Amino acid sequence: MINVGVVGATGYTGLELLRLLSMHPNVNMQVVTSRGEQGRKVADVFPGLRGAVDLTYVDPEEADFSACQLVFFAAPNGTAMRSVPALLAQGVKVIDLAADFRLKDVPTWEHWYSMEHACPELVEEAVYGLPEINREAVANARLVANPGCYPTAVTLGLWPLLESGWISHQNIIADCKSGVTGAGRKAAVGLLLAEASDNFKAYSASGHRHHPEIAQTLSLAGGKPVDLTFVPHLLPVIRGINATLYGKLETPESVSNEELQAFFEARYANEPFVDVLPFGSHPETRTTRGANVCRISIHRPLGGDRVVILSVIDNLVKGAAGQAIQNMNLMFGISETTGLERAALAP
Amino acid sequence: MINVGVVGATGYTGLELLRLLSMHPNVNMQVVTSRGEQGRKVADVFPGLRGAVDLTYVDPEEADFSACQLVFFAAPNGTAMRSVPALLAQGVKVIDLAADFRLKDVPTWEHWYSMEHACPELVEEAVYGLPEINREAVANARLVANPGCYPTAVTLGLWPLLESGWISHQNIIADCKSGVTGAGRKAAVGLLLAEASDNFKAYSASGHRHHPEIAQTLSLAGGKPVDLTFVPHLLPVIRGINATLYGKLETPESVSNEELQAFFEARYANEPFVDVLPFGSHPETRTTRGANVCRISIHRPLGGDRVVILSVIDNLVKGAAGQAIQNMNLMFGISETTGLERAALAP
Amino acid sequence: MINVGVVGATGYTGLELLRLLSMHPNVNMQVVTSRGEQGRKVADVFPGLRGAVDLTYVDPEEADFSACQLVFFAAPNGTAMRSVPALLAQGVKVIDLAADFRLKDVPTWEHWYSMEHACPELVEEAVYGLPEINREAVANARLVANPGCYPTAVTLGLWPLLESGWISHQNIIADCKSGVTGAGRKAAVGLLLAEASDNFKAYSASGHRHHPEIAQTLSLAGGKPVDLTFVPHLLPVIRGINATLYGKLETPESVSNEELQAFFEARYANEPFVDVLPFGSHPETRTTRGANVCRISIHRPLGGDRVVILSVIDNLVKGAAGQAIQNMNLMFGISETTGLERAALAP
Amino acid sequence: MINVGVVGATGYTGLELLRLLSMHPNVNMQVVTSRGEQGRKVADVFPGLRGAVDLTYVDPEEADFSACQLVFFAAPNGTAMRSVPALLAQGVKVIDLAADFRLKDVPTWEHWYSMEHACPELVEEAVYGLPEINREAVANARLVANPGCYPTAVTLGLWPLLESGWISHQNIIADCKSGVTGAGRKAAVGLLLAEASDNFKAYSASGHRHHPEIAQTLSLAGGKPVDLTFVPHLLPVIRGINATLYGKLETPESVSNEELQAFFEARYANEPFVDVLPFGSHPETRTTRGANVCRISIHRPLGGDRVVILSVIDNLVKGAAGQAIQNMNLMFGISETTGLERAALAP
Repeated sequence: MINVGVVGATGYTGLELLRLLSMHPNVNMQVVTSRGEQGRKVADVFPGLRGAVDLTYVDPEEADFSACQLVFFAAPNGTAMRSVPALLAQGVKVIDLAADFRLKDVPTWEHWYSMEHACPELVEEAVYGLPEINREAVANARLVANPGCYPTAVTLGLWPLLESGWISHQNIIADCKSGVTGAGRKAAVGLLLAEASDNFKAYSASGHRHHPEIAQTLSLAGGKPVDLTFVPHLLPVIRGINATLYGKLETPESVSNEELQAFFEARYANEPFVDVLPFGSHPETRTTRGANVCRISIHRPLGGDRVVILSVIDNLVKGAAGQAIQNMNLMFGISETTGLERAALAP
Repeated sequence: MINVGVVGATGYTGLELLRLLSMHPNVNMQVVTSRGEQGRKVADVFPGLRGAVDLTYVDPEEADFSACQLVFFAAPNGTAMRSVPALLAQGVKVIDLAADFRLKDVPTWEHWYSMEHACPELVEEAVYGLPEINREAVANARLVANPGCYPTAVTLGLWPLLESGWISHQNIIADCKSGVTGAGRKAAVGLLLAEASDNFKAYSASGHRHHPEIAQTLSLAGGKPVDLTFVPHLLPVIRGINATLYGKLETPESVSNEELQAFFEARYANEPFVDVLPFGSHPETRTTRGANVCRISIHRPLGGDRVVILSVIDNLVKGAAGQAIQNMNLMFGISETTGLERAALAP
Repeated sequence: MINVGVVGATGYTGLELLRLLSMHPNVNMQVVTSRGEQGRKVADVFPGLRGAVDLTYVDPEEADFSACQLVFFAAPNGTAMRSVPALLAQGVKVIDLAADFRLKDVPTWEHWYSMEHACPELVEEAVYGLPEINREAVANARLVANPGCYPTAVTLGLWPLLESGWISHQNIIADCKSGVTGAGRKAAVGLLLAEASDNFKAYSASGHRHHPEIAQTLSLAGGKPVDLTFVPHLLPVIRGINATLYGKLETPESVSNEELQAFFEARYANEPFVDVLPFGSHPETRTTRGANVCRISIHRPLGGDRVVILSVIDNLVKGAAGQAIQNMNLMFGISETTGLERAALAP
Repeated sequence: MINVGVVGATGYTGLELLRLLSMHPNVNMQVVTSRGEQGRKVADVFPGLRGAVDLTYVDPEEADFSACQLVFFAAPNGTAMRSVPALLAQGVKVIDLAADFRLKDVPTWEHWYSMEHACPELVEEAVYGLPEINREAVANARLVANPGCYPTAVTLGLWPLLESGWISHQNIIADCKSGVTGAGRKAAVGLLLAEASDNFKAYSASGHRHHPEIAQTLSLAGGKPVDLTFVPHLLPVIRGINATLYGKLETPESVSNEELQAFFEARYANEPFVDVLPFGSHPETRTTRGANVCRISIHRPLGGDRVVILSVIDNLVKGAAGQAIQNMNLMFGISETTGLERAALAP
């Protein structure tokens, strides 16, 4: 059994982590922290976990992780970086579900997150926890930066095309749509059901902090910087991200649809959590609800020189808590799929 | 391993059964039938099951259940009754998730379901599969009539009060609200998102076929017929039933809130799938999403002589497929909770 | 033209008032106040009003209503009562959309609203602004207490039955469901789309402040106190209230369904904003979306001694802003229907 | 008064037309047809119109439009083209809300709509009814082809940029999202609330019939064919289209954001139904709910060479019925804004 702690377990990411960890056969949840709910039982705050989680929130200042082998940070950006050095020094591994260790360039990070980094010396060591491109490094990591939700959907969709050189590194568009849990569990008028339901809008269209994260990873795929436009939108759904990805084929005349499809299928053949649908399919976000899976399909509109990739995930699972558990499984030498279902809750 | 078959596995009840059975450690799904989708892979029809269910629909006429120990009927009313005698004769047990064997009075059944019963001789033998009141009989049954969704929520909420004689058998109101999956997976204009979302309405307020089913069971609780008014409503949610139940205390002056609460807690203390919340709580349907649980709370408005019970379930789980699996576990001597989670998918 | 002011025009009730007043041919909006948004243009805060409302919020402390003939208070409870005496003294009429003047018994009001009343001497004069029962008094009023949303739906549904003595004043149940705008435009976690959508729950089931308001009015109908149980629920819809009302017929054997129907139709024959549907209909909340109308239907489940009334309104229109304008029309001698549509925005 | 007829008034487009026409001061609705609902009162089929529309559906075969000056076709594609020649010959003007007269190239039309055109000789005469680019021609037209919903949102967003030559005619992406009413009022499993709510997906990503319509119009703007990729998506909302439009600036270094903004504002300064929001805004679909308006904003992500236009409409109003009335107003010399509100129903 792996003894784990969860810091910041009252947000949506943390809550989903508790739900998934409660069903994991190899995990023993020991400590869950919350500044706002300390002293309350988890199941009193989240009655959907009654009978499943029997822990009480403790104050993060007073939490004792010494018996833990792993601590998940599901707290706001800027939280993990203050505690990680001490934990690593104690021999405790860390998976940060926030952004503190995602960007390799510290000034870029400080620009987008508007704060000074507390432990820049650990940024290089941190492994970007997207197992499909970093499996071995994750397995050997002490510190994993769990990817953002948009970056997960976009990267898994575009990586094969850039890695192979089939599409240009220019003129890439990522038009992304996310359910409201992506914005976190915070009381904001714009996220009220009365405001956000029966409604749709773009946000941060002039620039979003997931842009540098996506660009950093995709640039690795092709070996050179990508010219990417990324526009996120707010969907009136609870969970789910759809990324509609546009790329230009370098040599459209010499690539058939069948080749594109075969290439994707081969690239992800051994990936338990990436599902390539038949060519021309339209994946629905609900086919990932509650499941740790990214479903992808390929289109070539009107047979032209543009390829469109549709990539869907549950932002709280493959986009956050599920991926974190996938990383944990790798870090502790457990079968990668343990505790992670692929059957979605649909309808 | 129990070899099972599922008849009618393209409706919402059948689909949920496939999802839950795919995660059940003691079950081997052998045959799934569908008249409309025969020859197609289950996972092609329901991509949310890709990677989880690897079966192909067969025509119900050509299905061979001889290797099955149990067949679930998740088909329309009037389907199971045509096949059950032959299956029982072969030694195959049956759980019917439709209504064919729920009502003990055949003429009443024929009135409400507008057809002649095909095997009235089996109606008496059939066990009403609500484990909380019929556990032993279920364990010994060959044929189980899985309760309706409304009847499950209403019965679990009112049973203790009627059994104990604390409320009158008169003036009982069950104001119930159900998500749209309760209406089945059928193309009907009134169930379109464009019509049913951002909307609410009662239906069948002058009489609904779950009325005789509820009345039959509740009359057993108190030993005499109940005077029940039952009005169902259509909620713009996918899953979930909320039953708001109104009863009159027989001797309000001699019953304290604490006694009411203690009585409910004691009645359900050993029930793994009934959760009594603290007095005065307001259970939310989402705390049962995907989980086989009925959550109940008790109110006494303004301290008067009326008791209000709030009872919530996921209509597809404790109200259908989950309850069917709970019954299966009992019938095959497996631990009752096997394959059934209590952690809800919330948010 | 009537010069009007609106105090507290940033909540949902106030916003709906602005929308409706902007289309009213006899109204000149002069002053709109907001503590939080002072100095901003209304259409900047609510872009749906761009091109329709060209006013700027002013601080309520600095607002000058001296050129207004009427001021609407769409502010929190306890606001209007502080300003009304001075306004009336200036000859300015007032419609309060909050609760300050709804309850005639001041101690009861102070109990439920947890504050001391600032001008109890005006409570008696205030007219309860439900035109269908108080038309003449409204026409002559200086101060109108606009009814609550639940009380409007419940009262219009039950009034004829109690007034006529057809149902008992005992055993009355009002099971009510409201869209989330009923809770106001406040940032609260429980009202987030991520929490409240695909979900349903009761709230305040042990007692809600609309109970004394409903009881006060219904007691007038029958001439004696009513025994009412009222349970509100939160619907995952933006607008809309459905009240499902249960009463016991005093002499069921001597009342036919046709008589019940004819009586309701006659009672509301001259009411422009009460629509009695055919017997046994199921009104949908969306048929009132944006429209100042209460649609009502009558049921008698299984032909028994209980009558069920279904009553639906748009909580922001007939339940608030539309009713306020209906009252204004009466107070200023304009045709009662001016500026108020009956065509709902559906789908 | 203009006497009008409506063919096919049971779909969402036709229903919205009835709602809007019922409030139009210069219109006298005379004939409404429906094959499926003939003989029923409109208000019985759509109770939201009780008190607003007092007509009975007649069979389209038996409809007499001889007293009408104008007939709207809100029927399926391929309907209007069979009746238009006779109507025009009678001196009755026609606005077709379907696609029969939108494409100037008949073979292209026949390819995408999979039928033979019944009156190709009228295609040239038909005026594409987007007043913002065709006002004069509409005013003089006998036959107006009302634009599709996606084409309206996309064209109004991109027209100024192509007309001015500021963006390239290549590499144009239109990532569009539509509410479910865009799919029409047809019973289809995929449009059920249980399937489409809490869900999102692309559809027709390999090619959609609005592509040639958009391309035809945009090619006029720039004087040469555009290279356009258009991907539509299904939003879990009732009404609303959001078009996110990506173009490449021809000379990014010489165009400032202020110039872009000023140019759009100038282009649409006299347009009553196009609203240019401040630079960098994010229009929400709900700010157009029920209103005949297109709201547009401009972005330049990270200050680069790509411009992103966000364009939102209510697909049933500016995308269909409202635009049809705008065209009618022009054709009959009435003020263009008559009967058309700009205040949206929000929340």
